[in-house]
Amino acid sequence: MVNNTLTGPLGFRVGAVKAGIKESGNLDLALIVADHPCTAAGTFTTNKVVAPAVLVCKEHLTNSKAQAIFVNAGNANTCTRGERAVDTICKDVAKHAHIKPQDVLVCSTGIIGHPLPMKKVRQGIKDATSVLSRSVKSSRDIAQAIMTTDTKPKTAYAQLKIDGKVVTIAGIAKGSGMIAPNMATMLAFITTDADISAPLLRRALKDAVNITFNKVTIDNHMSTSDSAIVLASGLALNKRITKTGVVYKRFAHSLWQVCDDLARQMAADGEGATCAVTVRVDGAASKSDAHRALRAIVDSPLVRCAFNGADPNWGRIVSAVGYSGAKFDLEKLTCKIADTPVFRNGCPCNFDANKLSRKMKAKTWQVQVNLAKGAYSDFCYTCDLSREYITINADYHT
Amino acid sequence: MVNNTLTGPLGFRVGAVKAGIKESGNLDLALIVADHPCTAAGTFTTNKVVAPAVLVCKEHLTNSKAQAIFVNAGNANTCTRGERAVDTICKDVAKHAHIKPQDVLVCSTGIIGHPLPMKKVRQGIKDATSVLSRSVKSSRDIAQAIMTTDTKPKTAYAQLKIDGKVVTIAGIAKGSGMIAPNMATMLAFITTDADISAPLLRRALKDAVNITFNKVTIDNHMSTSDSAIVLASGLALNKRITKTGVVYKRFAHSLWQVCDDLARQMAADGEGATCAVTVRVDGAASKSDAHRALRAIVDSPLVRCAFNGADPNWGRIVSAVGYSGAKFDLEKLTCKIADTPVFRNGCPCNFDANKLSRKMKAKTWQVQVNLAKGAYSDFCYTCDLSREYITINADYHT
Repeated sequence: MVNNTLTGPLGFRVGAVKAGIKESGNLDLALIVADHPCTAAGTFTTNKVVAPAVLVCKEHLTNSKAQAIFVNAGNANTCTRGERAVDTICKDVAKHAHIKPQDVLVCSTGIIGHPLPMKKVRQGIKDATSVLSRSVKSSRDIAQAIMTTDTKPKTAYAQLKIDGKVVTIAGIAKGSGMIAPNMATMLAFITTDADISAPLLRRALKDAVNITFNKVTIDNHMSTSDSAIVLASGLALNKRITKTGVVYKRFAHSLWQVCDDLARQMAADGEGATCAVTVRVDGAASKSDAHRALRAIVDSPLVRCAFNGADPNWGRIVSAVGYSGAKFDLEKLTCKIADTPVFRNGCPCNFDANKLSRKMKAKTWQVQVNLAKGAYSDFCYTCDLSREYITINADYHT
Repeated sequence: MVNNTLTGPLGFRVGAVKAGIKESGNLDLALIVADHPCTAAGTFTTNKVVAPAVLVCKEHLTNSKAQAIFVNAGNANTCTRGERAVDTICKDVAKHAHIKPQDVLVCSTGIIGHPLPMKKVRQGIKDATSVLSRSVKSSRDIAQAIMTTDTKPKTAYAQLKIDGKVVTIAGIAKGSGMIAPNMATMLAFITTDADISAPLLRRALKDAVNITFNKVTIDNHMSTSDSAIVLASGLALNKRITKTGVVYKRFAHSLWQVCDDLARQMAADGEGATCAVTVRVDGAASKSDAHRALRAIVDSPLVRCAFNGADPNWGRIVSAVGYSGAKFDLEKLTCKIADTPVFRNGCPCNFDANKLSRKMKAKTWQVQVNLAKGAYSDFCYTCDLSREYITINADYHT
């Protein structure tokens, strides 16, 4: 059986434990440790209120090298003057895994404003190091350990051949709430055994994130901990990728596939989601117009409630475009829901609302709006807004 | 007993009927008719997708005169090529009320994309004209008739003395969903018997709307029908207000009071709302920074779910400020919930979460954020986001 998890790419061990940070008592602390220092790249939240872990990751990535990632869920260690905690984590991981502290990356996700329970965290690091393994079970455990309100773990996998060598890319992600389309907006960890130069790894990650994780919106609230990190061990022994030619493009495409798969899983597992909806805006006069119209649609709770009710309420979509500031002529605007034209040339189309409503009850479907003003497009992965979202976020107490 | 309704100001009759436009069979068509042509002013939605009724109102107000307002709820007559319907409404109201068609203003609110049932509307106009009266009951009826998802009618009233004459201002409003802080964002109708010049009436209305109706946000979705209209009969026989002196300021203040009262009632009756929350941002480096930080907070479903759960979750508020783009230093930022400091100088405050949660269960309370960067402020009236909001908007079918 193929190991299609984070330990599928050569050179990585992982381990997860129940450190007691999550109130539920579930797995909540994970380590990804590479056999050797890896070429590494990361993209991070642009929120000005930022976890100290993010600042340390950026600092430790200045040399494009890393060997381990520490992750805990249940506590974001943000707004807590938590710099010293992150420093201790790096030192402890380094000590137990026999690596350098500056090769450790740290990600903390969960509640804001509560100090990390460092006694539990330090014991957890010790325990997680002792269970590090290349097993599929350990990989599955860490995909569980990084979850907060996610209902299911998110994993993705791709393989390609470079110079006759098999190169593997595997990823896990968490993200369900506090997700906005601006930077990684969640946690994602990707391992690969590709041999690739640091600038090209950075570029491939940035390009992939821009059209995958950055296109997910659940609730338009950007978190303080968003991080997407890739570690490349080089153990596939392909000829090192150092140029932006065909080989780079094939690698970048596979990395995009992994990120896109994870991003779609995040939208589908949005807090309280019953369906994943891809919203596309085409025919915009400019890039910013496409973005504006898209955001007005997906940021409208009214639109996303209609998704939840499987209601082909094009009026909410068209009126959102109306106040978006994007250029369009109502007389030429078209809107399709689940491939069914519902609005065309300033007028509602004749469609079977019951039949369309049944199509909207599928797990995934599309909304397409054409502004008929130009050649620019944008898209977004989102989900419906449900009572369950409110339950999760009104009853989750600080 | 004082008549503190729309027919309190001298010179107005009103009438409402059940025309059969609302599926519920409730009152749904209203007329406000003045004894003589009034000085009139209005502010309207800036949505590019706009009801033809709004276009006709703007056209009919070019001479700053109007004598009647037609309102129906249950159908917005938008995206339906409904221009002819509006024309017919003006002519029918004019015929039955013995006034000029160009002195009729029209407002339609409700579902988008369905043609108005004109047979019912025309019969309704005839019936409403026949029940026009100055009674308090008729006034209460029209406050009911303009409601869509509102749970209660909204009325407000003010009196002042000018040159020894009693001047009365009364208003009604509807608005509960599809409410965003940009233009009137709802329907409001105000009658007054003040004698005031058209430019000053326009100015007083615009200034009042800017800091009242424009400060309400329920779901950040701007409707296609938003209108706020004031009719001034002049029958109080005060010396005509033609200058921006003390008398004008007192009138404008009273008009603001009426609008502010209605705006607060709208926030409190936001769809599914269990509490009305005033959010203030102070200490911003610029007007746009104050607005940006404010919008990031109130547009976050996570923040508004915390309001619903009476959860003093300052982390969501502070992180929203973090991605707003507004300038601030986390080390100087302060945040108060229901007058309780919860975050100060980059750190959480010590506060009794249970006690504060009880305070957040009140009908109305405040959030205050100080960016400590300058002298600019902004504020907003909003409410919590509840399961009931989803129920209303997912189950309301087109």
